[in-house]
Amino acid sequence: MADDGGSTGILRDELGVLPPGDVRQCLVALSDSSRLMRSLMNYRFENGSLQGHSFGNLLLSALEKVTGSFDRAVEEMGRIMVIKGKVVPVTTNKVYLKMILHNNKMLEGEHEIDMSTEIDRGFQSIYLEPFPQANTRAIDQIMTADLVVLSPGDLYTSLIPNLLVNGISKALRETGAKKALVVNLMNKHGHTTNFKVGDYLREIKRFVGKDVFDYIIINNSKLPEELVQLYETEGDPVKNDLVNNPRVIIADVLSNEVVQPQKTDTLKRSLIRHDSRKLAEELMKIVDSF
Amino acid sequence: MADDGGSTGILRDELGVLPPGDVRQCLVALSDSSRLMRSLMNYRFENGSLQGHSFGNLLLSALEKVTGSFDRAVEEMGRIMVIKGKVVPVTTNKVYLKMILHNNKMLEGEHEIDMSTEIDRGFQSIYLEPFPQANTRAIDQIMTADLVVLSPGDLYTSLIPNLLVNGISKALRETGAKKALVVNLMNKHGHTTNFKVGDYLREIKRFVGKDVFDYIIINNSKLPEELVQLYETEGDPVKNDLVNNPRVIIADVLSNEVVQPQKTDTLKRSLIRHDSRKLAEELMKIVDSF
Repeated sequence: MADDGGSTGILRDELGVLPPGDVRQCLVALSDSSRLMRSLMNYRFENGSLQGHSFGNLLLSALEKVTGSFDRAVEEMGRIMVIKGKVVPVTTNKVYLKMILHNNKMLEGEHEIDMSTEIDRGFQSIYLEPFPQANTRAIDQIMTADLVVLSPGDLYTSLIPNLLVNGISKALRETGAKKALVVNLMNKHGHTTNFKVGDYLREIKRFVGKDVFDYIIINNSKLPEELVQLYETEGDPVKNDLVNNPRVIIADVLSNEVVQPQKTDTLKRSLIRHDSRKLAEELMKIVDSF
Repeated sequence: MADDGGSTGILRDELGVLPPGDVRQCLVALSDSSRLMRSLMNYRFENGSLQGHSFGNLLLSALEKVTGSFDRAVEEMGRIMVIKGKVVPVTTNKVYLKMILHNNKMLEGEHEIDMSTEIDRGFQSIYLEPFPQANTRAIDQIMTADLVVLSPGDLYTSLIPNLLVNGISKALRETGAKKALVVNLMNKHGHTTNFKVGDYLREIKRFVGKDVFDYIIINNSKLPEELVQLYETEGDPVKNDLVNNPRVIIADVLSNEVVQPQKTDTLKRSLIRHDSRKLAEELMKIVDSF
């Protein structure tokens, strides 16, 4: 909900809407509708003034304008996309992510932070502005869940921003739900250079205020050497430094599919990815063990 | 299918798609979906690079890109909008409307012709370029219909262009269907200034090649004086000069609703309109008499 890059950033600036990009991807991932509908939602216009906008982003933004509410827009788009489950934004406040580096340099916006390569030299603070209140529905979902999963994603621009929303970290500390972390496969150069699993846990703990994870899922399938080389300038594989830790689940959760970034994407996409089916299986084993 | 103004014109130029605007309006008119969905399709973005685009136009254009076919896009949008009936474009060729005035001046494109105020001084020719073939599905619908209705619309930029598509006029002459003309309420200044019903019939006959109408529906409800005054610069009411003509159906088909043009419309909308329910009743009386 702090995304401000690409198509999403333009829609925020020009229309004053909430960021549609990540919510759209969640809706498409949960959609039971036809392949055509899912292609349509991810379709990016290639020319003219619409260039780079994904159609699904435009749909969410138009729905927000017509209904007057982002929450309602997400609900309606979920209906159109015939989704299983729910997509609940962590906040519906209009926020921007900011970071003050160790040298007092200020990074403004998720996109600018994303592009920086000096975060691994340390930062003084990271925060959302203005300080947002959690969506009460998000708190309810965390408090009543059986299992809360922190999914893989960029540490400082995707995972931690959720924890900066007022009420979310508290809910994670207080919920009776089990908590699982799916550890990233790759570090991000200039952000988490040479991070090991323990470094991720330490950084997340700084913001949650407690080491809350009951399960830590770490991939053990070897990353293809040629892909690791392709990634050389982007980052290195995350190594596991947790030994004899009963919370750790070591499993093959690597995707074998090689995903080419779309030529019309305005931002780079990663190629080394988790396999959503393998990951779902590991998570369901956890749920079945309750 | 020759529209090139407003949002539609921009999409044609920038994306190379077929004109979505009029098809969108037909789909919305036939839609059985929720009020929200219909508002969404007619919603026009108000700011930035999307300004003036109606959401439904973007949907049709994105569907055309994703499916690779305008026909298929119209069909899919019909499904999304839960339409009754069918919307069949008269041609799926990429065409522009052109007109050569009596002074040899060339008007290029429907929008330019629409804006001209010197057409009533006479023109040498009006044609579509490149010369389009009719959609075979459109021909089939005309040939197998019980009743073909020519609806009200701008004579030279909405009605006659259909008759310029190769095969359409022939189908209208040869079909066993009954043919009805719903005569315009208002003339358009500079196009049909001071036209009477007989003038419309004469102009349409020039292009169909025959006076094909079995029914001519003319409104007899008095137009509100204040609206007629509002229209003074745009046009005058169409007077009926057909007397004792057995084909004429005189009826109150006027809308009492005052429709304000939307402030975000990029083109002017008329205020004096037919009432779709009253008109449907007259047309169903015809069908019931078969």
